[in-house]
Amino acid sequence: MTSSGTNPDGAAGSAAWELLLPAATAPARARGRSLRDALREAVRSGRLVPGTRLPSSRDLAADLGVSRGLITEAYEQLTAEGYLRSGRGAGTWVGGAARAARTRARDLAPRSAGARADFVPGTPDLSLFPRAAWAAAHRSVLAGLPHHDLGYPDPRGLPRLRTALAGLLARRRGAVADPERLVIVSGVAQGAALLGSVLRSRGMRAVGVEDPGSPRHSALYAAAGVSTVPLPLDEDGVVLAALRRSGVRAVVTTPAHQFPTGIACSARRRAELLDWARSVDGYLFEDDYDGDFRYDRAPVGALQGLDPERVVYAGSISKSLAPGLRLGWLLVPDSLADEIVARKLTMDLGHPTLDQALFAHFVERGDYDRQLRRCQRAYRERRDALVTALAEHFPGARLSGIAAGLHLIAELPGRYGPEERFLARVAAAGVAVRALAAYRHAGPGGVAAHDGGEGSVAEGGGPGGGVRLVLGYAHLPPARIRAGVRLMAEAAGG
Amino acid sequence: MTSSGTNPDGAAGSAAWELLLPAATAPARARGRSLRDALREAVRSGRLVPGTRLPSSRDLAADLGVSRGLITEAYEQLTAEGYLRSGRGAGTWVGGAARAARTRARDLAPRSAGARADFVPGTPDLSLFPRAAWAAAHRSVLAGLPHHDLGYPDPRGLPRLRTALAGLLARRRGAVADPERLVIVSGVAQGAALLGSVLRSRGMRAVGVEDPGSPRHSALYAAAGVSTVPLPLDEDGVVLAALRRSGVRAVVTTPAHQFPTGIACSARRRAELLDWARSVDGYLFEDDYDGDFRYDRAPVGALQGLDPERVVYAGSISKSLAPGLRLGWLLVPDSLADEIVARKLTMDLGHPTLDQALFAHFVERGDYDRQLRRCQRAYRERRDALVTALAEHFPGARLSGIAAGLHLIAELPGRYGPEERFLARVAAAGVAVRALAAYRHAGPGGVAAHDGGEGSVAEGGGPGGGVRLVLGYAHLPPARIRAGVRLMAEAAGG
Repeated sequence: MTSSGTNPDGAAGSAAWELLLPAATAPARARGRSLRDALREAVRSGRLVPGTRLPSSRDLAADLGVSRGLITEAYEQLTAEGYLRSGRGAGTWVGGAARAARTRARDLAPRSAGARADFVPGTPDLSLFPRAAWAAAHRSVLAGLPHHDLGYPDPRGLPRLRTALAGLLARRRGAVADPERLVIVSGVAQGAALLGSVLRSRGMRAVGVEDPGSPRHSALYAAAGVSTVPLPLDEDGVVLAALRRSGVRAVVTTPAHQFPTGIACSARRRAELLDWARSVDGYLFEDDYDGDFRYDRAPVGALQGLDPERVVYAGSISKSLAPGLRLGWLLVPDSLADEIVARKLTMDLGHPTLDQALFAHFVERGDYDRQLRRCQRAYRERRDALVTALAEHFPGARLSGIAAGLHLIAELPGRYGPEERFLARVAAAGVAVRALAAYRHAGPGGVAAHDGGEGSVAEGGGPGGGVRLVLGYAHLPPARIRAGVRLMAEAAGG
Repeated sequence: MTSSGTNPDGAAGSAAWELLLPAATAPARARGRSLRDALREAVRSGRLVPGTRLPSSRDLAADLGVSRGLITEAYEQLTAEGYLRSGRGAGTWVGGAARAARTRARDLAPRSAGARADFVPGTPDLSLFPRAAWAAAHRSVLAGLPHHDLGYPDPRGLPRLRTALAGLLARRRGAVADPERLVIVSGVAQGAALLGSVLRSRGMRAVGVEDPGSPRHSALYAAAGVSTVPLPLDEDGVVLAALRRSGVRAVVTTPAHQFPTGIACSARRRAELLDWARSVDGYLFEDDYDGDFRYDRAPVGALQGLDPERVVYAGSISKSLAPGLRLGWLLVPDSLADEIVARKLTMDLGHPTLDQALFAHFVERGDYDRQLRRCQRAYRERRDALVTALAEHFPGARLSGIAAGLHLIAELPGRYGPEERFLARVAAAGVAVRALAAYRHAGPGGVAAHDGGEGSVAEGGGPGGGVRLVLGYAHLPPARIRAGVRLMAEAAGG
């Protein structure tokens, strides 16, 4: 057992132990801890190999000039943890249980933006986050929160927040929103994960997604074991014939302002989608990601309001406050509510309560309405700046999806194409921009728009070689929008 | 199309419309909104049935004494949303798209505690939550947080928090904890959900769990498609022979202070468990739910420290700060890290950043160490109060698992049995208490402790009819502990 042991009772031996252990200058308790940590680390790193016999506690105490109790305690502790072993009268030696960690070197630094102008959509202006009001709400909530609310949360969400949100969603989005129908989640992505998992447990192996659409959906549903079938769009929204042929019984949709095309789902298509859902006993997942922002008229009410038993509605504060807060909500049909809540429970036991209480306070006091108005004003100004700059620097460009949301679609005249060359040039000039084509779902499995094979609205630049861009503007002050468009025009030539 | 329509141009008709709509006393904009909401609600509730023709905008404006533009806007809005339909010259009528919500009546009130004394374990003392320090940390963090940190989070967790936690876990728990190995999660439950899902994707259909053990584990793993195999315990921890026979390649364990028996996994068993994991290319999931609290000697270091490539370590602030905050961490083997982070991303995109920054600040400033010391002092005092009260009121009771954690096991002498009668009596007296037997995993599938069928340490009261209780004490002030034990003794007779 001690064949490879070192006998440290000579001078060389004790010198080696002293090198191993920290200088005995700290107070006794801290020295005990240092000794223990140093020994543990020496075993772990392999500097002390299994079988190595340790000095007796008396010898090591004398060598290190510390009390024997300190050594005994450290030996006992590390023996209980499995690093050392000891036997009656056999002394103490290094056990064989510990294994070294594999090394792993990765960059911890956040990705740097780098671009001189960044039109990639998806993030709001984080500088609009109302820090003072948020801090005040935190203070006020923490002062008044019952102890009980610091315990394990209600998996459906804090009743106070569900009550406040129900009022907000009925008023602002025309939704059928009672507190019993609401589930607080970490955002639309978790909503999709929950729904995907529930649909899977009901035997649905696929859901329809809009094509082009959010690249995230496939990954979210795939993780729940549900594949995605891309569905083409026309001017009214998802193409019905393709939806019917697809065989799916659930479809993810962004009716207020389709991502990324900006199409507003027409009243006729809304009714048709609901008829379809009823006919297949299926569901629509309404991702209302930017439904709060509409610039030229009142917002179109949520699809969910037309049939709350066929629509799962999802919203969040990611675009109105900050994505980093991770807070959102679902309005769920009665037929799915219990299963969705059960999944939420097994996913994370429920949402952080203090965050929920804080947002409830924010909604109750009208702070959230104020924030939405503030964003609406800022984003409308930015949209106007982008529309004006595009008209100036890209004459002849056709814009769409401009009435709402945080991005628009610009179709540039043929002379700017082909698209690959345009994108390469502006990228070289330091402008980050995405083509509409980048949001096409990859791979097979898509359903043609029409039996005749006619192209849907989302087809690429076409024979003229036109360039179709998705331009996010909400995160950029007007001056940076103007500068970015100018930079892009200079780079593109055209 | 208008066969069931109402013609509202007579006096009776216009009176009906007036009743439907709110009194026109508000300012114009608010009146427009009220009109729209009232019409939408009337369609939704079925008071206006599909096909009902609406008055012309001119007529209704005159009837209600409002501007015609207000009516036109409301009609247009509700037509865009799908509630109404209109045709050239055909007027406006109620569409057929809307469906009423099913009613759903549920109790929103939180469950009331009710019990006069509550020894059910699982919750810390929520009144120990350091509100002032937490509020100060929030203020300070919010003032200094870069805008960038309000964006979508790093799915592994905020680098600043991972750095702070790595230091804490190495120092306090003897863990191999570098920031690259840490994943911030919502708690141990989410950790189990993530691990279950990754194991499932590697073809593992079952994990071992300690029996008796936490009743939550089965549900968490079941949701990930992984079944649980109950494994018996002896005085050293999970019985090795049973583990080997079970065929599982992963086991969930609470080595510091087994839940609920309080057994500390011995050094020998730690080494054996790791040998087993290496031999089957498997993993141990170390649920360190109360490893911070040990009263009579230094805490036993984490099992993870012995072999960070075979142990997934999970901890949280649920017992040290508050479960409602939903914040915890995993230390993951290199071989699982990328998959676990990918699952976290599809589960919720990552943990709320502001909460992470706040806790990082709390750790960095030493506030968390102070809080742990404060809890440690309070919980030790409560444990002592419980031990003393049990000795006084239940002479002859055998206590175990008292050296650590937030609960202990009390085995009462035979005269208090049988267990069912004891439990019925104390329940009738208003004392909430759980028998150890309540933590046995239900149903078949368990693995016998020994081939000979000898009972494990967790077998029930035995022929003597002894009563074995799991008594949580951390959430109760000493005076309530004493009163509760007295109440229990009076109720039990004995």
